[in-house]
Amino acid sequence: MKRAKPKSQRTPPFAYEGLDRVMHERARLGVLTSLLAHPKGLPFPVIKKLCGLTDGNLARHLEVLEASRLIEITKSTEDARRQSLCRITADGRKRFLGYLAVLEQVLLDANTSPESDDVRARILRHLEAR
Amino acid sequence: MKRAKPKSQRTPPFAYEGLDRVMHERARLGVLTSLLAHPKGLPFPVIKKLCGLTDGNLARHLEVLEASRLIEITKSTEDARRQSLCRITADGRKRFLGYLAVLEQVLLDANTSPESDDVRARILRHLEAR
Repeated sequence: MKRAKPKSQRTPPFAYEGLDRVMHERARLGVLTSLLAHPKGLPFPVIKKLCGLTDGNLARHLEVLEASRLIEITKSTEDARRQSLCRITADGRKRFLGYLAVLEQVLLDANTSPESDDVRARILRHLEAR
Repeated sequence: MKRAKPKSQRTPPFAYEGLDRVMHERARLGVLTSLLAHPKGLPFPVIKKLCGLTDGNLARHLEVLEASRLIEITKSTEDARRQSLCRITADGRKRFLGYLAVLEQVLLDANTSPESDDVRARILRHLEAR
């Protein structure tokens, strides 16, 4: 029976395979973060403003996120004018938290450098101030 | 005299403009993190292994990083065989630490969500374990 390879040979430590391109793209990262912070959902124009995107750009990114089942878009018929409401899905929240854990790992790995002790100090300061 | 706009109107809070595409691309993020953690530099084959990249891929990404003056590549002539050594530049280190501060902000913003208290707990656990 062959022995399993040591973990270091299977997973390159700086490959960060968990940084899924669908979530990692800057605009989509912003949209997902805004939706994670607002679990009840946000209307299209609010996301546009929060993320500093144009109509066309936001529409394109929402399409990608919806196709990946990370978000769901519902049309509200409450008002006379229809309004699109975007929500992060339960599965999307789970996957995005997984993505964020990889980002944490990047920060922790960066922190192994002697001159980046200030990164650690800065994270701690931010967290303690909350 | 016109009053300055409040900050919230000038900088969309989820735009993350500091996530420079040159550094944000997954493979390049891995390369830069590995070089930040090894300030004396790393030879090409070591980076390739640490980041799980092919020769062609790594060469292409190093070219982009070098063109942006984030890294410098020197040819060692110590051995009979020439070896390329890559180092993060002083300016590159400064810019990459700025990029990492924006990543921290993403984690902190994600953390405003009620159900992501565990993100904060996880970051703290990681940091305290070091």
